[in-house]
Amino acid sequence: MSRVPPAVAEVRRALRHSLPDAGSGPVVVACSGGADSLALAAAAVAVRDEVHAVVVDHGLQAGSGAVAERARAQLAGLGVRAAVRPVVVGTGPDGPEGEARRVRYAALREASDALGGAPVLLGHTLDDQAETVLLGLGRGAGARSLAGMATWDPPWCRPLLGIRRATTRQACAEAGLEPWEDPHNADARYTRVRLRHEVLPLLEDVLAGGVASALARTAAQLADDDAALSALAEDVRRAAEDDDGGLAAPVVGKEPAAVRRRVLRSWLAAQGARGFDEAQLRAVDGLVARWRGQGPPSLPGRLEVIRSRGRLTLRRARSER
Amino acid sequence: MSRVPPAVAEVRRALRHSLPDAGSGPVVVACSGGADSLALAAAAVAVRDEVHAVVVDHGLQAGSGAVAERARAQLAGLGVRAAVRPVVVGTGPDGPEGEARRVRYAALREASDALGGAPVLLGHTLDDQAETVLLGLGRGAGARSLAGMATWDPPWCRPLLGIRRATTRQACAEAGLEPWEDPHNADARYTRVRLRHEVLPLLEDVLAGGVASALARTAAQLADDDAALSALAEDVRRAAEDDDGGLAAPVVGKEPAAVRRRVLRSWLAAQGARGFDEAQLRAVDGLVARWRGQGPPSLPGRLEVIRSRGRLTLRRARSER
Repeated sequence: MSRVPPAVAEVRRALRHSLPDAGSGPVVVACSGGADSLALAAAAVAVRDEVHAVVVDHGLQAGSGAVAERARAQLAGLGVRAAVRPVVVGTGPDGPEGEARRVRYAALREASDALGGAPVLLGHTLDDQAETVLLGLGRGAGARSLAGMATWDPPWCRPLLGIRRATTRQACAEAGLEPWEDPHNADARYTRVRLRHEVLPLLEDVLAGGVASALARTAAQLADDDAALSALAEDVRRAAEDDDGGLAAPVVGKEPAAVRRRVLRSWLAAQGARGFDEAQLRAVDGLVARWRGQGPPSLPGRLEVIRSRGRLTLRRARSER
Repeated sequence: MSRVPPAVAEVRRALRHSLPDAGSGPVVVACSGGADSLALAAAAVAVRDEVHAVVVDHGLQAGSGAVAERARAQLAGLGVRAAVRPVVVGTGPDGPEGEARRVRYAALREASDALGGAPVLLGHTLDDQAETVLLGLGRGAGARSLAGMATWDPPWCRPLLGIRRATTRQACAEAGLEPWEDPHNADARYTRVRLRHEVLPLLEDVLAGGVASALARTAAQLADDDAALSALAEDVRRAAEDDDGGLAAPVVGKEPAAVRRRVLRSWLAAQGARGFDEAQLRAVDGLVARWRGQGPPSLPGRLEVIRSRGRLTLRRARSER
């Protein structure tokens, strides 16, 4: 048996450790033709019996069809059943990046559904995770916005979150694969690209290195923290909520701030409140934790939260204010 | 009554909301003569009866004595009892910034002790908090390293963590105070200064604004999360620890990762383990959460953690490995 080169071995090992059901059933690999997803597809063929690759053609750049076809041919050469899936990226509130992401994930979910909910392997690396954490910093919504991407959130599986982007490039080189370099990766209009090429290198310099790994470690720990506190909050909400959807303020009020905030966010969402911000959530928390007869806090959509006889309810606001 | 100008009013309001015991007893203000601490001292005189200011002279720059004396005179002009406190900054493992910080806090604690544990007001602003969070990112130790500075951690009180640095400058201007501009603030050798002048402005540009506030909000929420999980972990540790300091693995093992990690960190510290890193903590967690008879994980200081009959203990390693 020939020796497996080091970067190829590292990618395979990461894939083996991340898949929930070892060795059986089909998997889908999302492949752009770039180093990350190409190295992942090559590892998948080595590790799994039935690998389907989907190359999404967003049609956003001239020649995107040829790029997709080249990726398909490379995948076929690896022994992967690969299909090019053209999609139409419309305009939407999330901008071109967000819209492309939305239609891409929809196409991938279809491929998974067609295979009975097969896991979809995504090539996000440790570097992508670090960029995601920095993006979350800009939102300022605490652990939720910093927890980054999950390794396993069915059907999505991200085996490479602990692996550097450079390792996937090396794995391609070791396997004789020529990845496609996305010209958008040098286009500074995109926030993520600027984080990659400007912010992270500067942070690495100022903080003397190790920032990408530190961000990824932080993301993993904050995801654990958020999971533990969210589970607690669900228990508290179940104990506090009555059959009519009212919430017993004293039950929630004896919890620490981190749990109260999650109980209230989840209760408000279940009651149909949408798009409220941290300041509004804090005002609702005031009804529970700092009750002194204050007026009902307003929420978007002309809703307000009432406290009456120790019980919170959500209702339509009665008048313009 | 004359109207209080807006920035002065904002600083006073922040001070009133942060002090644990409203209106009575002496307070100490740490004052460098810079805008943050000068605005804070001016607010303290307006809000409290007995204000003592301490101007620490680190003696690190030529003319530092004159800078300190100028600050003392400005404070005296405000009606604050101010004393210049010269300190000697030695060399130490934390570098010049860290050493200066250590001796400064020691001098301030002395002043607090001499006044029966009076609160020490520190002028850290929202911008300082944002820089602290970015520094924590570089450490990658999760919520603990991102939670930033606490508003109230006796005797330390930081009333201005929700206020922008620019507001303290405006408050000084409104009050006719001329703050001292530290030349080190333009010296790019210091990590914090580079975060302030290079990283944060770039992040503000790339993420389209609001980053400093987002970092400060994130810090506050993560501090809440960490407090809630740490309190839970202390309960679990009390339930799991026996009189000889052994830890019942099954009791800890049924907790989520976020709680287990805090139980084990606190138990290891109480047992005398020092300087272990996240990877070592994860190995100890393996004894609890992924037990399959593996060997004892090593910790710094030639210590190791044994699992025997479902019980963890810390002991000296028997042999070099």
